[in-house]
Parts: sequence; C-alpha cells; structure tokens
Amino acid sequence: MATMLDPQRTIRELQELRTLTADADGAQRVAFTPTWLAARAWFRERLAGLPVNVHQDAAGNVWTTLPGASERAVVVGSHIDSVPNGGWLDGCLGLLAGLEVLRRVCAEHEGKPPVTIRVVDWADEEGARFGKSLFGSAACSGNLDLDEARRLTDKQGVALPAALRHVGIDFERVKESGCERANAAAYLELHIEQGPVLLDLDLPLGAVLGTFGVERHAITFHGQAAHSGSTPMNRRRDAFLAAAKMAQEIYAIAARSGGGVCTIGSCTTKPGIVTSVVEECRITLDQRHLDTAALARMHREAREAATRFAAEGGVDVSWERLWSIAPAPFHPELIAFADDAVRETCGTSHRLPSGPLHDAAEMAMAGVPTVMLFVQSLKGISHNKIEDTRLEHLDLAVRALDRLAEKTMRWVADGEGSH
Amino acid sequence: MATMLDPQRTIRELQELRTLTADADGAQRVAFTPTWLAARAWFRERLAGLPVNVHQDAAGNVWTTLPGASERAVVVGSHIDSVPNGGWLDGCLGLLAGLEVLRRVCAEHEGKPPVTIRVVDWADEEGARFGKSLFGSAACSGNLDLDEARRLTDKQGVALPAALRHVGIDFERVKESGCERANAAAYLELHIEQGPVLLDLDLPLGAVLGTFGVERHAITFHGQAAHSGSTPMNRRRDAFLAAAKMAQEIYAIAARSGGGVCTIGSCTTKPGIVTSVVEECRITLDQRHLDTAALARMHREAREAATRFAAEGGVDVSWERLWSIAPAPFHPELIAFADDAVRETCGTSHRLPSGPLHDAAEMAMAGVPTVMLFVQSLKGISHNKIEDTRLEHLDLAVRALDRLAEKTMRWVADGEGSH
Repeated sequence: MATMLDPQRTIRELQELRTLTADADGAQRVAFTPTWLAARAWFRERLAGLPVNVHQDAAGNVWTTLPGASERAVVVGSHIDSVPNGGWLDGCLGLLAGLEVLRRVCAEHEGKPPVTIRVVDWADEEGARFGKSLFGSAACSGNLDLDEARRLTDKQGVALPAALRHVGIDFERVKESGCERANAAAYLELHIEQGPVLLDLDLPLGAVLGTFGVERHAITFHGQAAHSGSTPMNRRRDAFLAAAKMAQEIYAIAARSGGGVCTIGSCTTKPGIVTSVVEECRITLDQRHLDTAALARMHREAREAATRFAAEGGVDVSWERLWSIAPAPFHPELIAFADDAVRETCGTSHRLPSGPLHDAAEMAMAGVPTVMLFVQSLKGISHNKIEDTRLEHLDLAVRALDRLAEKTMRWVADGEGSH
Repeated sequence: MATMLDPQRTIRELQELRTLTADADGAQRVAFTPTWLAARAWFRERLAGLPVNVHQDAAGNVWTTLPGASERAVVVGSHIDSVPNGGWLDGCLGLLAGLEVLRRVCAEHEGKPPVTIRVVDWADEEGARFGKSLFGSAACSGNLDLDEARRLTDKQGVALPAALRHVGIDFERVKESGCERANAAAYLELHIEQGPVLLDLDLPLGAVLGTFGVERHAITFHGQAAHSGSTPMNRRRDAFLAAAKMAQEIYAIAARSGGGVCTIGSCTTKPGIVTSVVEECRITLDQRHLDTAALARMHREAREAATRFAAEGGVDVSWERLWSIAPAPFHPELIAFADDAVRETCGTSHRLPSGPLHDAAEMAMAGVPTVMLFVQSLKGISHNKIEDTRLEHLDLAVRALDRLAEKTMRWVADGEGSH
C-alpha cells in the first residue's frame, strides 16, 4: 500500500499555498498575521476526511493526530510561517510532506497504525516579527525564557503577549504546550538545506547530524582617535587595524576546527570619519560547531587572537556575549535510519550538520530522539523569494521522509524511542 | 631694538583671549558666531596706538597693515576662529605672535620699515560650521569653488551665503579678496604642530616643508550575503574579509612611501547583522604625502592591493573619489630661513611636513613664497580643550617667528619674493 504515497500531490499543494500566500516579493506567511492564519486555515482544509483530531496547543502550535494502537507517537514537524519576502519551501515543505506521510500511513493501516503519528505545525519558527525564533517549539521543549520573551516588541511597538492575545494565545500559559511531549517517542523533520553543501555534492538529500552550537559575541577594540594627517604611522593606536586582523584569523580558526564556521557580520567605527584614526571598532563574531568541545576551542582561539592583535596595536579589547546555545546532536539510530532512507530513495546519502537552528533542535534538547532530512537548495539560498529546489528533488524528499517515518514507527513499535 | 619683542606679552594675551572666549569645554571661537566677533573686536583693541591701518576684505579676512618704504609686503597670517570645544592655541597663537612681530618691527623702524608688513586674520580656517576649511584664504588665493561653497549649509540648514550676509560679507564678491595678494612678497605662519613629531624628538620648534597632498576615497567591496550558519567557509564571498586586508596593507604602503601616511577612518557593513556574511563593506581611505609622485604611487598601490584582495575573495571592488588636493611644498629659501631662525632661537631645528592643511597652503598654491613654523604640541593633540604647549616653548616660538620675519623682510628688501 506504500504506493498510496503521492509526492506529486505535495508539490501541487506547495504550489497552491504559494499562490495563496506569496506576492511578487515572495512568501508572506509571517507568524500571527492574517496571511499566516489563512495558510493555517488552508492546511486544516487539507485534513478533511482523514480520521485525525486537530487541536492548537497553549503556545499556538497545531497538532494533527492519527491515533495508533499505541499512544506512543512519531511526531513529524515543521512550520508554515515564513520570513517576510521568504521562499516557497522553507517550513511548509516539511509540513506538507508530513501530511503526505500521514495520509500514506492512514491508508496503509486503514486508519489505525501500530503507533500514533502526529504532524505538528510549530508557531513562529522564524521569529521574523519579534526577533525570537523557535517560539512554539521552545515553549513546548520548556527552553523558552518567559521573562525575556515577555519584553519582546515588534517594530510598531506591539508586545509579543499582546500579539499572541490577538490570535487567542495566553502568553502566561504557553509552556503548557510541554504536555504535548508526553508521548513523543521520536521527532522527524524535513527541511530545505538553506546552504550549498548538497548542491556542491550534486546530491538531492542528506541526513542531518544535529544543529550547530553557537557562540555569538561583540568584540570592541579601544584605541585612540588621532588626526589622519599629523599622526605618524608608528604613533597610532588604531582600533580598526586590530579588529581587521580578526577577519583572516577566523578563517584559520574555522579551518582548524574540523567543520565549524565563523562569521564577522558587522563592523562599526568611531568616530568613523575620514580624517581620524579609528578610536573604537566593534565587530560581531558568530561561531558555530556541532561539537561542544570544538566550539569552546574555537571561541578560546578567537579570544586569544583578539588579545594578541590588541597588544600588537597598543589597543584594548573587550567582549560582550550576545547569545549562545549548545550544539544539539541528533539521535544516532535515527541518523542511521535517515541515512538509509536517503540511500534507498536516491542511491547516495551524505551526513551534514545544520548551521541554522530548527524546531528539531528544541525537541532534541528536550530529550526526544530526533533527526532531520535536508533536501538540496538551488543556489544554496534561503529566506529569499529566489529560494528553490528541483521538483524531482522535492518528490524524492517526500519519499525519503516517508521511508524514515516507516523505519521510525517500527523502531518505536519495538519499544525504542523516548518514554 | 630687537629687545622690544616681548613674547611674554603674547602669552598673556593668549591667556586673556582664552578667558574671554573659552568655556569649560574649550575654545568656542567658531567663525561667524558672536564669540568669534568678540574675539576679533578684542584683537582690534590690541592695535590701538600702532601706526597701522586695518580693514576687512571681501571674504571677511582682516588685514592689519604697517606700510613700509616699499609696498611689497611680508604677510604674517593665521586665524582667530576655532573648532567648537577647541584648544587655546590653534590659530590664535600665530595671529598674536604676528602682532608681536609687527610691534617689534614698528618700534625698531620707528613706524616705517623698509618693506610693508601685514598681519592677516583669515576668516573661517576651521570650516567647523559649514564643513569647508580654509574659506577666507581660499577666497584670497582664488581656489575657492564658488558653486560648491554656495550650496553649503550648517546643521540648522542655514546656507553659507546667508551666514556671511549676517556678518556683512557678500558671498558673490568674496573672491575680490584676491587683490590683497597684489603686493604679497612672502607669507609666514606659526602654528601649533597638532601632531607628536616634535614631542617625540623633544624639540620646541620645527621648520615646515609644506602641506601634504591628499587623496581621499571611499572603497566599496561587493560580495554576497550568506547565512552565517549554513555557508561553508570556502563558499563565502566575504566583503569584510577583503576590506579588512586593506588595514594592514596601508601600513606597508605608508612605510614604503618615505614619509606618507594612510588612514582607514571608517568602515560600514551591509546587511551588517550578526547572522550574515557581509555583502557590502565600505571603507574610507585618506592618503597624504608631501611629494606628488609619491602620493600618486601610494594611491596606485592601494588600488592594486584592493583589486588583489577582491580577486582573492571572489568579490568586486569600486572606488569613489571623495576629495583630493595637491601637495603644497613651501619655498626652499624661506624653509632655510625658518630652519636658521629655529636653530638660532633654540639650538636645534627639524624639518617636517604638515599633515593637516593650513591657510599657508592656499598662499603657497597661489604662488606666494611661503613657509611655516611649528611649535611642539604636548600630547600631540589638537582640536581639543586639552591642547597645550609649554610656556617656554611659546616664548621661543614668538622669538623664532620674529627672526624668520626679519630674515624675510631683508630678503624682500633685496628684491626677492613674488612680484
């Protein structure tokens, strides 16, 4: 009965959703907006006729449940919200592929599979409006910092709690979403890669090893403003010179790290005028690695380099932690299943880490055995209207997710997964 | 009769002017303000009893003339205007020292020296309000770009012509100031160094070789924005990396140039967010040298380096000229006189270029034989209330300017200098 799986239907549904919720600039399904609500209503219509129950939890996540002989559940999740001017696949691919898997399981088991299967549409994965990503999954995992989230406002000054109230969510109760994890034995997620790794390897699909841990800091070098004409070069305490040396250094640090990445994303200078040596230069440094020890080493090396460059230039340096998160490695057995599912679907697999965060990281950190599949991203680009994936790769992606779900359901039925 | 020179009087007058025109934040003699007018009125009171005529020219420069047997004139000039929160010596030292020289010449020659001596107070040297320095001297030299100056506005939106009208100057006629150059045979100016060269050499005074030429450009590197987590290091087109390599390179370029200086004064990044590789990075580059060919070579080397760094990083680079000016070398014989005057005054001299521009550059470019003296600046700092010079050095500076003026007057009397 596996022939009931219809990946072309998923592609048609993705196209239909695009027509409904995108404009000339791309997808506009920003969480808590009317377009997002319209997308969710459209998704719910897709469930008509299926023997499922659907409910929205305390954090605004929507759960579609096909009860099985066992209450223990395989959860397939993703998000229908997008960034403004987003791509047509980011998030909704995983959700609609999950729906297709649910349809196949339902048909194959005549509405009563051996274990429960659930599809979750997480609320506000992107954090586009309030600057806090993974809102719904972090509420469910328990990692959400309520005090921090309570203070978030959008550009119009609307506070997150007020925006949630507008869509029927009581901010103070969002962590009650955690009860949804009670029977979650495993969590699966398919997503577009958002990077060029599979593209460079010319592979349709890959098994994801986990999401990178992140160390995110601002580094400020403090020198001395001095007149650009009257100050000899050997008398300068040039904050930009010290900061600029970090640019090449982080490439060396990343190369030594075995798979990590480092990015200086911004640089600001004070006084920042053409006639003065830079007195103060602030750069942001984002470092990511899948391995906790390797991430710590990368961060230590950056600190040592900054101290060295500051000393060379007679300037001072200070650090400010902006954000950090531990790596979220996925479950070894589920990674093996994902690898097998990809190989069975398209001949070759590849294991890769995820640089961006995903809701799957929240589930993994909450102790739910988790894995993801990535499908190739054309141009390696996401969060942009030009985001795209070949239709044949989308077809393969739905098939691979289905195979992964089948393997995972058997595994859970055999008593594996979280209890 | 040279004993009539009283440098201590100059110091007392500088202190009196500070009391009159500074507040807790420093000197406030910004051109065209009431405080500036008050300073000029105070200066004019100092002239009482001297057989001089005083008039304001079409550009607002104030000329104090002691007619000599010959109409050919040695001009001693500087400016009484300051930046906001400026130092107590920048500009007014040269003017009051010039006054003291005029007093000495007047006394020595019983009111009728062999050549005419003139002291000029240039209008708005600093350009603090309208962003255009050397206003009065550029009007006099003829280098002032009227179309450009006509469009200048201050922070309150007041146009330069309106501000000039307020102090009785007709903007459209400012270049009539050029007639003042008719009999100018030589131009002399004493100024605080505004840099640390004499301080480092532990010398009170130096002879200035000329003012640096300047090449001032913005350099923009254009790469590709990419997600900081999902983009492998070897796939990045990092505009910041390319721009940052310029930071060290300009120190090498300056070192090779034989006396030039290079400054990157500002750096801006787009999108400039912590989670993205930098797509566009703009830096400003200010390069200065006393030698035209060396300045051109420095500029060419910077262009070659930027092209090389762009190619290494797979990014593009574009240049925008912000401003440039040719070097203004001073007159060889007057430099020799200045050197002698300093040596006779304090034992040791040093020849050095001027990084900042001065009104003297306008006179030199207009073909008037010109030289400057620099007096040591404590801490090498200027344009700041902490600007200072030892009182004994101020005393020596007035003496050296007087010796230089005496040598120059003899030179002019002998038929040298511009005709």
